[in-house]
Amino acid sequence: MARIVALETEDVRFPTARGRIGSDAMNPDPDYSAVYITLRTDDPTVPEGHALVFTIGRGNEVQTAAVRTLSNLVVGRDVAALLDDLGGFARELTGDSPLRWLGPEKGVMHMAVGGVVNAAWDLAARHAGLPLWRFIAGLPPERIVAAIDFRYLSDALTPDDALAILRRAQSGREQRTAELLERGYPAYTTSPGWLGYSDEKLAALARQAVADGFRTIKLKVGGNIADDMRRLRLARAAVGEDIAIAVDANQRWDVGSAIKWIRALAPCRPAWVEEPTSPDDVLGHAAIRAAVAPVPISTGEHTHNRVMFKQLLQARAVDLLHIDAARVGGVNENLAILLLAAKFGVQVFPHAGGVGLCEMVQHLAMADFVAISGSMEDRAIEYIDHLHEHFADPVRIRNGRYLAPTEPGFSTEMREASLREHAFPDGPAWRHEPRQILSR
Amino acid sequence: MARIVALETEDVRFPTARGRIGSDAMNPDPDYSAVYITLRTDDPTVPEGHALVFTIGRGNEVQTAAVRTLSNLVVGRDVAALLDDLGGFARELTGDSPLRWLGPEKGVMHMAVGGVVNAAWDLAARHAGLPLWRFIAGLPPERIVAAIDFRYLSDALTPDDALAILRRAQSGREQRTAELLERGYPAYTTSPGWLGYSDEKLAALARQAVADGFRTIKLKVGGNIADDMRRLRLARAAVGEDIAIAVDANQRWDVGSAIKWIRALAPCRPAWVEEPTSPDDVLGHAAIRAAVAPVPISTGEHTHNRVMFKQLLQARAVDLLHIDAARVGGVNENLAILLLAAKFGVQVFPHAGGVGLCEMVQHLAMADFVAISGSMEDRAIEYIDHLHEHFADPVRIRNGRYLAPTEPGFSTEMREASLREHAFPDGPAWRHEPRQILSR
Repeated sequence: MARIVALETEDVRFPTARGRIGSDAMNPDPDYSAVYITLRTDDPTVPEGHALVFTIGRGNEVQTAAVRTLSNLVVGRDVAALLDDLGGFARELTGDSPLRWLGPEKGVMHMAVGGVVNAAWDLAARHAGLPLWRFIAGLPPERIVAAIDFRYLSDALTPDDALAILRRAQSGREQRTAELLERGYPAYTTSPGWLGYSDEKLAALARQAVADGFRTIKLKVGGNIADDMRRLRLARAAVGEDIAIAVDANQRWDVGSAIKWIRALAPCRPAWVEEPTSPDDVLGHAAIRAAVAPVPISTGEHTHNRVMFKQLLQARAVDLLHIDAARVGGVNENLAILLLAAKFGVQVFPHAGGVGLCEMVQHLAMADFVAISGSMEDRAIEYIDHLHEHFADPVRIRNGRYLAPTEPGFSTEMREASLREHAFPDGPAWRHEPRQILSR
Repeated sequence: MARIVALETEDVRFPTARGRIGSDAMNPDPDYSAVYITLRTDDPTVPEGHALVFTIGRGNEVQTAAVRTLSNLVVGRDVAALLDDLGGFARELTGDSPLRWLGPEKGVMHMAVGGVVNAAWDLAARHAGLPLWRFIAGLPPERIVAAIDFRYLSDALTPDDALAILRRAQSGREQRTAELLERGYPAYTTSPGWLGYSDEKLAALARQAVADGFRTIKLKVGGNIADDMRRLRLARAAVGEDIAIAVDANQRWDVGSAIKWIRALAPCRPAWVEEPTSPDDVLGHAAIRAAVAPVPISTGEHTHNRVMFKQLLQARAVDLLHIDAARVGGVNENLAILLLAAKFGVQVFPHAGGVGLCEMVQHLAMADFVAISGSMEDRAIEYIDHLHEHFADPVRIRNGRYLAPTEPGFSTEMREASLREHAFPDGPAWRHEPRQILSR
């Protein structure tokens, strides 16, 4: 009988701020970072499951402490029992009363739970010898429903609703799996659009994105309206009329200023306007959407749990949603969110980038295509060509599409050398940084 | 020129779970705990400011790590400049981009910011030689407005709205201050109502509460509907018809079950039904309130920031609100919430209990009475007779009312002996606990 013998964490940080990679209206100088989680077993055939909780630098040690405090709820568990009831496992971690007080179900503690739960799904998929998307897509609908916490959802999505959606998607699963393996899943790219880039770099990267096969690019906006309009026009000139250009304000505006700003940008025909205001402001998004229709409004990257996603849908506050693999309570809660989106008929464009987010979220989008929504041509996964070299099984992009992973697991295993190099604050990557950066 | 020379933290925990004190439908065995924060200066006349972030045990070390990571944003600051711009200080901590990623403005990181900001207000009030409520109430309206972050609020409350409310309350401030000093502020008590108490203990404590002068008591509900009705009837028999009995479900229900449960309890005429469902579910509260009217619905103790309070008010989701001194981003954000409540004409019944919450929140309620809402007889501060002996300037209750604090500061200073005794895990209070409790 195999047991979980350790929950290990590593604080890894990449000095990305040096190149203004990832700069947006709210985050001028992120150092992409993560808590790298290892769920270690005494089963030599499947010794480890992995996941990452993504942060942007300072405070990664707080996130690490949050993961570590879950150790006592995890170590010693029977692996077979855990993998047999991933829903119960997630509910126990989320529902632990003293830790729940620190949220509830939001922020540092909820992301920590999500990380450990994701590591358990990696373990489960490795046990099954399948990439996670195929493992999920192959589960009977009842097993998927059992993995979901319907607490606070039943006014919008019941277990029966979920079962109906999953059963409807059972037909055609093999065909969609084959399609994914052959053609992959559409991607869009944000690589050209960081606020810190010069006009020349923006235009060159936008042209490159089209040459690489992307059909949608995304630009960061929200710093200065004249700059935004100039950059949008530049991007449009670079990519032509057939490529969609989305914009992302990263929560920069109040409701009133969002409406004014989006109306000004509307002639540039944004494919969507992402995070116009606080991710908490369901009613604000609804007011903005109503005022700027038909410009599509979206949010979700920072939406902290299924209760918030439920309300965004109930209030008709968004035209499309973004999910993030490392913000909510793990695969289970993302399955709930994908089912909510399917019930309300809203497209999901998964958020990615950072470190490990592309690797993880591709599995969720692909499982959604095969087993939940049944649709992918009207959606795309965000893609940023950055830091993939640190993964044992990195994402593969061909002609603007994510190729379907074929290795067992959640694609979350990092390379040993990368972990050593970027360990914070003692790894070689940080050796030449000034003391004030290391002590931040 | 005085400087902040240290941001110190202490992990203090009280073994309250032994007596099932504080037990409710979601939290069966809390060990009331706190991160005790000291903002230390090199000014010998006002050497320290204090605050507490309240938790219920396990995970208090995560909360401690979150406070500590703010140290680099705080230490070295000029004290006079900090105290002169408490709004700017709070915005800098809240807006720090990497730390904001860990929320944004919610959970562990936001409570940490709130704790440090609260310690700065304690320092400011000590500098002024005034209890915090008098310090706030004596600030010019423009200074209060400058302390508030209106980001994401402007569709519901503008700086001009806030100024108008504050200016309206300028007349009569001296009279209300005198009234507070003479009579204190109404309290209600939850001491009789913990779920873990026997019927006999409940009835005896309810009778005692009335004898002590309280006009409102509160019972925990949500475990079992037959038990709830029996306990409500017992309490009613114990206190008579003139005493209000509120109930608190601590987030136990989904929307549908809340409606059924509250309809069943309605004949017992609850003064309000608190936290019927997820604190994140603005639309859920609105649906529940509409379905069970005229039973008053409330929430707020776990509402994580001003954006959520704004929506609860915009959606007419609640009849009354609870604020908590240690959940949101400090005094500044609570002033914003009190102004929002005043603008929407909704009463505030501050949440308290735990450790230090009564001590802190009394100042906010009293400042509200003098300088914002101008009203107190239609509201009350929660009171629980527990752990006050650990404070240098504990709350004083007379005839069911909080007496107005007169010592300078936020009443947040803990006694040295109490800190030593309850240091976790090495303090004497924890000496005889089994190892598995200490390692939790």
